[in-house]
Amino acid sequence: MPRIHFHQQLAALKDKLLAMAALAHQVLEYSVTAYVKGDMSLCAHVLEIEAAINAAEREVDEMAYELLSREQPMAIDLRFILSVIKINGDLERIGDQSVNIAQRARTLDKLPRVSLPVDIVRMGEHAGKMTQLAIQALVEGDAAIADQVLAMDDEMDLMNREVQDVMVELMQEKPETTDYALNAIIIARNLERSGDHATNIAEDVIFWVRGSDVRHKFALADAD
Amino acid sequence: MPRIHFHQQLAALKDKLLAMAALAHQVLEYSVTAYVKGDMSLCAHVLEIEAAINAAEREVDEMAYELLSREQPMAIDLRFILSVIKINGDLERIGDQSVNIAQRARTLDKLPRVSLPVDIVRMGEHAGKMTQLAIQALVEGDAAIADQVLAMDDEMDLMNREVQDVMVELMQEKPETTDYALNAIIIARNLERSGDHATNIAEDVIFWVRGSDVRHKFALADAD
Repeated sequence: MPRIHFHQQLAALKDKLLAMAALAHQVLEYSVTAYVKGDMSLCAHVLEIEAAINAAEREVDEMAYELLSREQPMAIDLRFILSVIKINGDLERIGDQSVNIAQRARTLDKLPRVSLPVDIVRMGEHAGKMTQLAIQALVEGDAAIADQVLAMDDEMDLMNREVQDVMVELMQEKPETTDYALNAIIIARNLERSGDHATNIAEDVIFWVRGSDVRHKFALADAD
Repeated sequence: MPRIHFHQQLAALKDKLLAMAALAHQVLEYSVTAYVKGDMSLCAHVLEIEAAINAAEREVDEMAYELLSREQPMAIDLRFILSVIKINGDLERIGDQSVNIAQRARTLDKLPRVSLPVDIVRMGEHAGKMTQLAIQALVEGDAAIADQVLAMDDEMDLMNREVQDVMVELMQEKPETTDYALNAIIIARNLERSGDHATNIAEDVIFWVRGSDVRHKFALADAD
């Protein structure tokens, strides 16, 4: 197969992955907005987009399989294709987290609203920013941008812990808020996990671009 | 490169993955035992084994990369290698979940013990069984065993919901148990996610063996 056809196939694979990444970023935003604004119509959109992400994961895997079986990609092209296989899994998981957040938003919508002394909106924005930067790193093949995502992960972890501590205090003082506070804790955890998946994507971009494996070099002593 | 050398490399890759899988099963068991028996010495073992799993993930990826760059694996061998790249990620995540469980066990160890009307031990056994069956499906290339793992996922989900419902009631009635109950909820969620990763492994085995993509065919309407 002529090399130009190979590079067209490679470009098609990259485009498909980027389209999937855009959906993942969008669905995360929708799910947080559904919670913040109590907009239940967005929950239906979340489910639709997540289904599209799942279908895209299968298509990307099949395209990667075809490319690998027909060509003999070497070096950086091979690393790129292997990164794609890893990255599409993390994008799919961001879709899953968004569905989880939307389901929590639905549950909360049925409960008496409780004013929470925590900033889940800020966590949502942080997770969205991490996802957007990870996608940008992927588009531009830029490991320095990927590094920025890794650096944002600690902040996400701190915010998650704060939400949990404050919510536990609230539940102890006002047991009638337990159901509501627990769902808020779960949303915060889902956002923290979305940040983790953005971090994984950034690490895979670094593997592709620098050819070096940075995974697990960051201490996970207090993960989750 | 002579084909016999290729098959030796392929066998080495499989062995490495299976060793990693055995570690994942072991570390999950240790973390649940640490919680059940309040055995904090096991927590240190959990961290050591998880570090070994993380190192193995990198090695498996490098071996897969080498195989793909030197050979031109076709059909079932190629599907196997792509499955390996997916599966090692899920094994690594089972390691992460086990660390999370061990950390929760440590936190609980410092709190006044609360007798919980839920069976987290049974959840731990279920997650361990799913992991063990997924590994067996991988060892034997047996899609029927993989199907069994998929069927066990619903039960895991039901048990997780039950723990959450019962714990919320407990926290509402006895707010002094909030901290303890919340950690128990988190352990249950970590076990449920471990079951999800075992399910993902089973789906990847089915992809390898049957050449068909079963992922996302099961409704995730009430996931998490």
